[in-house]
Amino acid sequence: MANIPYRTYLTEEQMPKYWYNMRADMKQQHDPFIHPGTMKPAVKEDLLPVFCEELVNQEMNTTDRYIEIPEQVREFYRTYRPAPLIRAYNLEKELGTPAKIYYKFEGNNTSGSHKLNSAVAQVYYAKEQGITSLTTETGAGQWGTALSMAAAYFKIPLTVYMVKVSSQQKPYRKAIIETFGGKVIPSPSDTTEAGRKILAENPETGGSLGCAISEAVEKAVTTPNSRYVLGSVLDQVLLHQAIIGSECKAAMELLGEQPDIMIGCAGGGSNLGGFISEYMGERLQGKNNIRFIAVEPASCPSFTRGKYAYDFCDTGRMTPLAKMYTLGSDFMPSPIHAGGLRYHGMSPILSKLYHDGMLEARAVSQTSVFDAAITFSRVEQILPAPESSHAIRVAIDEALKCKETGEAKTILFNLTGTGYFDMTAYQQYNEGRMTDYIPTDADLEVGFESLRKLPVNEGLL
Amino acid sequence: MANIPYRTYLTEEQMPKYWYNMRADMKQQHDPFIHPGTMKPAVKEDLLPVFCEELVNQEMNTTDRYIEIPEQVREFYRTYRPAPLIRAYNLEKELGTPAKIYYKFEGNNTSGSHKLNSAVAQVYYAKEQGITSLTTETGAGQWGTALSMAAAYFKIPLTVYMVKVSSQQKPYRKAIIETFGGKVIPSPSDTTEAGRKILAENPETGGSLGCAISEAVEKAVTTPNSRYVLGSVLDQVLLHQAIIGSECKAAMELLGEQPDIMIGCAGGGSNLGGFISEYMGERLQGKNNIRFIAVEPASCPSFTRGKYAYDFCDTGRMTPLAKMYTLGSDFMPSPIHAGGLRYHGMSPILSKLYHDGMLEARAVSQTSVFDAAITFSRVEQILPAPESSHAIRVAIDEALKCKETGEAKTILFNLTGTGYFDMTAYQQYNEGRMTDYIPTDADLEVGFESLRKLPVNEGLL
Repeated sequence: MANIPYRTYLTEEQMPKYWYNMRADMKQQHDPFIHPGTMKPAVKEDLLPVFCEELVNQEMNTTDRYIEIPEQVREFYRTYRPAPLIRAYNLEKELGTPAKIYYKFEGNNTSGSHKLNSAVAQVYYAKEQGITSLTTETGAGQWGTALSMAAAYFKIPLTVYMVKVSSQQKPYRKAIIETFGGKVIPSPSDTTEAGRKILAENPETGGSLGCAISEAVEKAVTTPNSRYVLGSVLDQVLLHQAIIGSECKAAMELLGEQPDIMIGCAGGGSNLGGFISEYMGERLQGKNNIRFIAVEPASCPSFTRGKYAYDFCDTGRMTPLAKMYTLGSDFMPSPIHAGGLRYHGMSPILSKLYHDGMLEARAVSQTSVFDAAITFSRVEQILPAPESSHAIRVAIDEALKCKETGEAKTILFNLTGTGYFDMTAYQQYNEGRMTDYIPTDADLEVGFESLRKLPVNEGLL
Repeated sequence: MANIPYRTYLTEEQMPKYWYNMRADMKQQHDPFIHPGTMKPAVKEDLLPVFCEELVNQEMNTTDRYIEIPEQVREFYRTYRPAPLIRAYNLEKELGTPAKIYYKFEGNNTSGSHKLNSAVAQVYYAKEQGITSLTTETGAGQWGTALSMAAAYFKIPLTVYMVKVSSQQKPYRKAIIETFGGKVIPSPSDTTEAGRKILAENPETGGSLGCAISEAVEKAVTTPNSRYVLGSVLDQVLLHQAIIGSECKAAMELLGEQPDIMIGCAGGGSNLGGFISEYMGERLQGKNNIRFIAVEPASCPSFTRGKYAYDFCDTGRMTPLAKMYTLGSDFMPSPIHAGGLRYHGMSPILSKLYHDGMLEARAVSQTSVFDAAITFSRVEQILPAPESSHAIRVAIDEALKCKETGEAKTILFNLTGTGYFDMTAYQQYNEGRMTDYIPTDADLEVGFESLRKLPVNEGLL
């Protein structure tokens, strides 16, 4: 115990200078994006109206194992990174487990989450290309905050479509985005065709990430010299988030430690994809046998109850189709508090890995997640975001299994963010007013119906 | 630039093992506390019903230069410390100043401020003494959060009297205290004599720190085996907060740097007292010539417009009297957003240093403070607490003076906390609804009247 500190920070010299591109080590790539108009594989030109060119290049790059992090992005990283690797001595003691528990803490910045890692990269490339305005969507608000911070730093105007239910549950999230100069529009809104269509069909909807994406994409492609930025799902986002895993692996190796199990929450998959990247790359090369576990909410179980099929990334059906685990773009998740995990689909890279048996998945209920969050916060002295607490839940479960079996496994999880803007959820939990939402099979059928109707899924479902 | 990193973290081995006791290097001590009943200097026995014995010992200890930090407290410190020393490269660039700007960032923990440094020490000593419940007050809510975290860790029940206006402005602060198991009572309340008396006189009052202190002290002394803990003003609190200054000095020395100016905000004085302690100790010994600047709100100007006199630490006149700069315990500050600075008095140690000319003071207006906060946040990517932003305001002012004179001074300030729970204030500012409150001389006379009536001040005013 004495030799391993509570917190390990890399020095600036030890910080990664490259993003690790996991796809270079995947023997098979995920199926290509499909253009929604032609229903044929999307090519670079299809994506250029939506994304900056350099980001499209990264999206398509399956061969370069390392991509250099631009100097200005590294400079920005130094304002809040390195993120610490923490040995959870107090949690181990509280649980009485022989397991060693580590977590990477990505919430030590004003956005409160890992989202900043990709936000700054995407804003930087937009600035380089001379883009004059950006749009995006946000669920829990962490991505919107992160992007507004990066946009303020590089001085680019930003419009954020925020899932309506989140903007109501988290008014202060909206305020912080505005403090950094971002313009917030609750979604669905009447500012886009996509929004108006959804409102016409369901005026009372609380919105969803998929729906907010539709609005943000439409706004970007209909505004001159504007582009859209996405905080999750895409390969480019996982690429930028690989800095989590690279820092983590460097720190673990400094300590002489090797994980047996790695755990992350999964909404669109960005934190998990980045967190496991280098270790997964090694596993793909047969160099380790780590168990990787994705944790998702039981209310939005893309991996554990979804279909592996082509689907739109958004509810408005404007985006390219991705081959992924999905509940169907029509699936409207119930308003659980982990807004960042309310997404119908899942990163194509992670979907492929899951399909190939390299990744496990587990669905957990909301109240059990808050149970874990409370246990964790009182001993580790960090108030976790509801999203991150999904990973805590399974880390605790695995540590308790070790207690039963007497095994001293090394468990490593990603604590993606803090819950300072989730206090309404904690209030509900504290007052015993929190309930669980588990969709019935009939609920899921609604989304699956839309998948079966897509010609590109013929024979798949 | 290349040699100095953005962020410097000490290793666990480099972290201080002792609290530095500045009083051991003060040639003259501040005047003693006065017992409110006898109007004679308070002795140890007078304080024991209110505070734990070991804390009373520390309160009275003017001779030991170093006091060992107990192992369990150091263990707790390791859950969130070391706090980084940050080189504000981005702020320097934004201002175009030749000055070198550094800040110690004490907000990187769930309480969002430096308050945790003393909270854990006080709870630890209470636990050691077998105390079974604790009471305290909180203004901005940071102290209450910090204490609830420490109380959860050491498993002691806690009641927090929260200044009513703060509990209304910051409902999520209340929620986070409750998440860690603390019981929150808006003050003034009907649960104490002191509260009922104040409510009877002024039913619409938003409360004040002084008033909340009265309630918490009364509750502690009327509950068996209970004690009161205070987050500021007292010598013991400055002692615990000395860890800020010791870490800071160690980190500056690692970088080969020496400050010319040190700046901190001042409400009760705990962060400033701790922050400057080691450097002030050296100055008292003639070893440096650093300028120390206390920054207070123009709406509550204890140093710049107050009297150096004996006064009660609370509005209910239950506590011992301290010789300090004060606006009078009857002074009811206007509801500015920096709740942590709404206190009529000031640490006796800092008051003595100010009186002796070792410390400067400056009062700044609320809107100018938020101007500075916005400039800072957009380039340094940290959203500061309104309290902390008082220090930012003066750091920027000093850096701009350097720009005029061409001097490359080294400016070091203490960024005590984050503003995540102050979003209503930021909202007001963003929407142009924020105003400044400057008390008139007539406003101040109300408080001074009460001071003149105290026999112990005869001949002083």
